Amino acid sequence: MIVTLLTDFGGAGEWVAAMKAVIRGIAPGAELMDIAHDIPPFEIPKAALVLAAAVPYMPVGVHLAVVDPGVGTARKALGMRVARGDYLVGPDNGLLVPAAARLGGVEEIVSLENPEYMLRPVHPTFHGRDVFSPAAAHLACGLALEKLGPPLDPSILVPAPFEEAQEGRDALYCRVIDVDRFGSLRLNASWERLEESRLAEADRLTIDIADVIYDCALHATFGDSAGGLFLYHDSSGQVGIAANRARASDITGALPGSAVFIYRPE
Amino acid sequence: MIVTLLTDFGGAGEWVAAMKAVIRGIAPGAELMDIAHDIPPFEIPKAALVLAAAVPYMPVGVHLAVVDPGVGTARKALGMRVARGDYLVGPDNGLLVPAAARLGGVEEIVSLENPEYMLRPVHPTFHGRDVFSPAAAHLACGLALEKLGPPLDPSILVPAPFEEAQEGRDALYCRVIDVDRFGSLRLNASWERLEESRLAEADRLTIDIADVIYDCALHATFGDSAGGLFLYHDSSGQVGIAANRARASDITGALPGSAVFIYRPE
Amino acid sequence: MIVTLLTDFGGAGEWVAAMKAVIRGIAPGAELMDIAHDIPPFEIPKAALVLAAAVPYMPVGVHLAVVDPGVGTARKALGMRVARGDYLVGPDNGLLVPAAARLGGVEEIVSLENPEYMLRPVHPTFHGRDVFSPAAAHLACGLALEKLGPPLDPSILVPAPFEEAQEGRDALYCRVIDVDRFGSLRLNASWERLEESRLAEADRLTIDIADVIYDCALHATFGDSAGGLFLYHDSSGQVGIAANRARASDITGALPGSAVFIYRPE
Repeated sequence: MIVTLLTDFGGAGEWVAAMKAVIRGIAPGAELMDIAHDIPPFEIPKAALVLAAAVPYMPVGVHLAVVDPGVGTARKALGMRVARGDYLVGPDNGLLVPAAARLGGVEEIVSLENPEYMLRPVHPTFHGRDVFSPAAAHLACGLALEKLGPPLDPSILVPAPFEEAQEGRDALYCRVIDVDRFGSLRLNASWERLEESRLAEADRLTIDIADVIYDCALHATFGDSAGGLFLYHDSSGQVGIAANRARASDITGALPGSAVFIYRPE
Repeated sequence: MIVTLLTDFGGAGEWVAAMKAVIRGIAPGAELMDIAHDIPPFEIPKAALVLAAAVPYMPVGVHLAVVDPGVGTARKALGMRVARGDYLVGPDNGLLVPAAARLGGVEEIVSLENPEYMLRPVHPTFHGRDVFSPAAAHLACGLALEKLGPPLDPSILVPAPFEEAQEGRDALYCRVIDVDRFGSLRLNASWERLEESRLAEADRLTIDIADVIYDCALHATFGDSAGGLFLYHDSSGQVGIAANRARASDITGALPGSAVFIYRPE
Repeated sequence: MIVTLLTDFGGAGEWVAAMKAVIRGIAPGAELMDIAHDIPPFEIPKAALVLAAAVPYMPVGVHLAVVDPGVGTARKALGMRVARGDYLVGPDNGLLVPAAARLGGVEEIVSLENPEYMLRPVHPTFHGRDVFSPAAAHLACGLALEKLGPPLDPSILVPAPFEEAQEGRDALYCRVIDVDRFGSLRLNASWERLEESRLAEADRLTIDIADVIYDCALHATFGDSAGGLFLYHDSSGQVGIAANRARASDITGALPGSAVFIYRPE
């Protein structure tokens, strides 16, 4: 079975390698696949979005995600089974929630508490290695989820780290979830949502970021734009804001969390 | 068969993972090997050089490269077979040209247009996932190149993203292709070229970068230099400019594209 | 047999891929596992610490590490066997020493000088590809270490790139080895050392960095701290200095090599 990994551990420390070595030791036959490790430290919203965008392309497997500012506190450690048949493993901070939704929704959740499936002693600052990796590896070997700990009521879990955009009259009130490598902004609204809102019927829309007004075309792709900002259907299905061969983040000054108000020009 | 990957997608997004998952889905037996994913966004010259430097060490296989500022425009998507027997897959923007030359030259090129070998619907901003990865995976499975689309005349392709250095009388007019991680400059001239030009017979050469004159030794290696800039035979075969335990890019202010004039001191 | 790789080559060049391709060519059955490639250029102390922290989790194998500012000079190229049964391969600049100690100590060392097990001609600036990778691959295939070159007397090797902290009366004189991705400082003292020094009996300790005095709690984990700096048992076993959801490096201005004086408050 495949085990995918997403962390904010970067490529300069021993952490990702230690996790993989632990998994390999328990599940020598597992196939490891990296999703991303250069998530900026503790950026749970971006991490949750990237995970949710990646898993639909992955085969059914175990998806291990560790962006975990609360490591060693009372936050729970989760193992869950989703409708498609995959397992998600990671901290209870909202990180896994959007991916679980993309895979059909949660069917069963446990709190990873069984010390038999941990690396002992558990180090208080590295549950990635000592709690989450062993759990993922045992699941990849076919262990039943309920062996890892007691069931949890999904309603007590920390919710997704970003809310869905709010809809107004011919308007969407959004936030930036993620500024990507190319300076493009990914918003907390799916393109489907924009289409349903009737905003997508317009040729151009107005956006307001930090009280600056931009007149934006709606483009399918980068090369279509003569210049300036444009709204587009991002490859993960979200509404994106980009600029042709320029960085939308530089033009607008937007950061993760910035408010973006999209409406029809008068 | 091996499939190698080079992109400018970095390690913080879902893009590389999505590509690998698509390839693995079509060609479960393919061996994936990363060449580089931290190419700075849209730096086609650097990407083309890195690809060309890597492929001679790779086994015969499929080499997939995606640095693609023109994604979704009319730029063509290419699949090519080279003399050594490898396949190269990527956009028609010059990215593949130096690697193709290193592998003996192009023998056959097609335009990737057959929708049967695409992930449908093709997303207009992510041909890496929806067009190039499926093509690479099908080639790795043994599909005949001509199945992927109509043949192209090589003469209409976008040329390499850097020109060869121009030779003057006891001089070479070069450009910086790449500023590497160590601040060293790689030029658009092979060391062989420098040797043939008789410049390499000198113990020292003069270089001019942005009208500043540097007296440079010719060194085989970093440790040989007492300090200051030196010219050396880069491990990829190009002329390099480096400084001992200092960054040549900081000393000279050179950037990708900067002109470098090398001549014999009078 | 597994071959692990650690370098400072980053993800934008062809170097790591070239090394892997060479290993794969010689040892097609070897399993490759990355430890880290984003070590900052030439940061031998950090690299040595990361390597030493990772190898205890790895299966017995060949551990190849290349952070090599002296490439092409008279510095020796090393192959060594350690008590656990692993082989370490890399330059003689101290990089391998802490990892060798963690794996039970050196049992045999050779100088990699046998041209039969090199990629010829050896490029003077890329022993990673032409000397170290072939040696690692041949060891992974079962070649006897002594075939690679003449034995070396361990006493002539370059020592570890960091000294152990010095102990005073109720005090430890430390240095920062590594500023990690989260801004936490890793010191040249193991937590065990701090405990043995009786300093760990205190609830709080005083630290002095660049003549600024900080009152620090001793915490098992990040979430325990209300704010400010704290000392903690790092997951690799070292003494760490961190701050809750803030960067200790920003608060203190500490860099790799900075002195840190830890003592009991009066």
